[in-house]
Amino acid sequence: MFSAYNFFQLARRATAGAAIYLLALAPLHAQSDPLPSWNDTAPKAAIVAFVEKVTMESSPDFVPESERIAVFDNDGTLWVEHPAYTQFAFALDRVKAEAPAHPEWKDTQPFKAALEGDMKALAAAGEKGLVELIMATHAGMTSDEFQKVVSDWIATARDPRFEKPYTELVYQPMLELLTYLRANGFKTYIVSGGGIEFMRPWVEQVYGVPPEQVLGSSIKTQFEMRNGTPTLFRLPEVNFIDDKAGKPVGINAHIGRRPIAAFGNSDGDLEMLQWTTLAGETARFGMIIHHTDADREYAYDRDTEFGRLDKALDAAAINKWTVVDMKADWKQVFPDK
Amino acid sequence: MFSAYNFFQLARRATAGAAIYLLALAPLHAQSDPLPSWNDTAPKAAIVAFVEKVTMESSPDFVPESERIAVFDNDGTLWVEHPAYTQFAFALDRVKAEAPAHPEWKDTQPFKAALEGDMKALAAAGEKGLVELIMATHAGMTSDEFQKVVSDWIATARDPRFEKPYTELVYQPMLELLTYLRANGFKTYIVSGGGIEFMRPWVEQVYGVPPEQVLGSSIKTQFEMRNGTPTLFRLPEVNFIDDKAGKPVGINAHIGRRPIAAFGNSDGDLEMLQWTTLAGETARFGMIIHHTDADREYAYDRDTEFGRLDKALDAAAINKWTVVDMKADWKQVFPDK
Repeated sequence: MFSAYNFFQLARRATAGAAIYLLALAPLHAQSDPLPSWNDTAPKAAIVAFVEKVTMESSPDFVPESERIAVFDNDGTLWVEHPAYTQFAFALDRVKAEAPAHPEWKDTQPFKAALEGDMKALAAAGEKGLVELIMATHAGMTSDEFQKVVSDWIATARDPRFEKPYTELVYQPMLELLTYLRANGFKTYIVSGGGIEFMRPWVEQVYGVPPEQVLGSSIKTQFEMRNGTPTLFRLPEVNFIDDKAGKPVGINAHIGRRPIAAFGNSDGDLEMLQWTTLAGETARFGMIIHHTDADREYAYDRDTEFGRLDKALDAAAINKWTVVDMKADWKQVFPDK
Repeated sequence: MFSAYNFFQLARRATAGAAIYLLALAPLHAQSDPLPSWNDTAPKAAIVAFVEKVTMESSPDFVPESERIAVFDNDGTLWVEHPAYTQFAFALDRVKAEAPAHPEWKDTQPFKAALEGDMKALAAAGEKGLVELIMATHAGMTSDEFQKVVSDWIATARDPRFEKPYTELVYQPMLELLTYLRANGFKTYIVSGGGIEFMRPWVEQVYGVPPEQVLGSSIKTQFEMRNGTPTLFRLPEVNFIDDKAGKPVGINAHIGRRPIAAFGNSDGDLEMLQWTTLAGETARFGMIIHHTDADREYAYDRDTEFGRLDKALDAAAINKWTVVDMKADWKQVFPDK
């Protein structure tokens, strides 16, 4: 976390307009290479070429700063999504934490499976079971209370394989890319299938993306005055699923401009990439992160149920989206300790 | 429009960081008084005192720039809402424009009433009738098509009493307030009960508020690839009503931070003012525009069905929100031609 945090402190100073200050402090290498964790392969060249052509005022592809919107998927694009979405690990931990108040869960699926860590039974419970787990652990409290639960969890939970906080399992090349885009006048947004309120408590510190630039799936909330205090109470009812064809809907509702760059890693990002790159009058950029690195991270694509990358990989070839081969194109996967 | 437009061109330059440039150009008076259309009465003093205490680093009430979120209602707070919401005038004009393709409307309510300008029959059609009009005129096309329809209409339509474009019937004191807040590091949002896609095509030019800082009511949209082109198709189904208790819900969903200042003019803004001012750890500011000026604009409050200001006026007294008496507190209502 330390290095990512320091990195963003530096980045924030830079994007706050004190670029000169940064140049004075940074070693020569950082000046000449904004993407040091990327190998000098095609994806890095494509990113730099795109940024240069839309930011140079003399370029025929120049795009004014207000239109420089870049959207990023989160799970599998900015941080690890294997072997299960981090939010799923959160839900399982919350079931365990709340179990004493729900003795009936010991004998009721999918809670029984969650408590016993029985992944097979959890899988058998399907989407219906997943929604039940989410509602039981994400609703029934105020938005302020939920924010605290998430903040406490994310500060202490550890990924079982890497034995690190999940917020350290973010991709160093993508952190550099976010910073590079912001330094070039882009507004960076997260557009995730994950829960919007699950991300907001930590993404600003980790990615430098403020809460108002986070889009995600949501449950309904209800405004109530409770003893004179205004609260939003989280209801056990789905409001919006910000995935697949939901992503362009969410982008239009929330941003109201068509992004000029989109970054994803799965079929859940296909429509976002289509919406971003296949219309609009100015230059566009689409990128797919292909997980090819079982040693340093994971390798999965078409033949995997989880995090499926199939149609979007075909579409990348047709639409000339840049495909990142994690193993070949990333010099480093995670931030230094 | 010209003066408002020039005003914003100037304001944008200023907020883009070139404050020195503005100071060099502006007359002395503009330097010393950021709110020249406000009389030197209590509301102006309250605004300035609030802005100074949250922006001075030495102040115990200092608020970092990222938390300086200000939310504004639109109808009746930033522009005229009488004798009918502008969006309603838009819907009636659209019914007339679309009537040749819908011969059945001549004999079907509420369309018959809309075509004949029969306000009594329209009122009798109630909320159900209104929703029918909205769906018939706001759905059944892509979001790009709707944006063009709105842009074309707003450029040509005229308010019947003032015989001016609606975008000239914005409140000069509120334009100054928006600019003043932005110059002091606030992010200004519109949080309107009106349609989000009805506002976005013109609010950036008129108020200096970019599309991503506009919240409003919405209908559902659906992503579709049409002959290889990604489109969002507008469905005749309500998605979200951004009014009353919906305003805090929308603010939390969209911004994810609690605003520190809120500006409204009716009971539809009550919950937004409560959410903004009655919780949170830093200083807060709430303001109600009270329409008291029948000569220059309109006078209405508790006893009016339309734009009702009743509970929110009582709440203002209890919660020490600033109430603007339009007649007494505003030197000028509309921008100079």
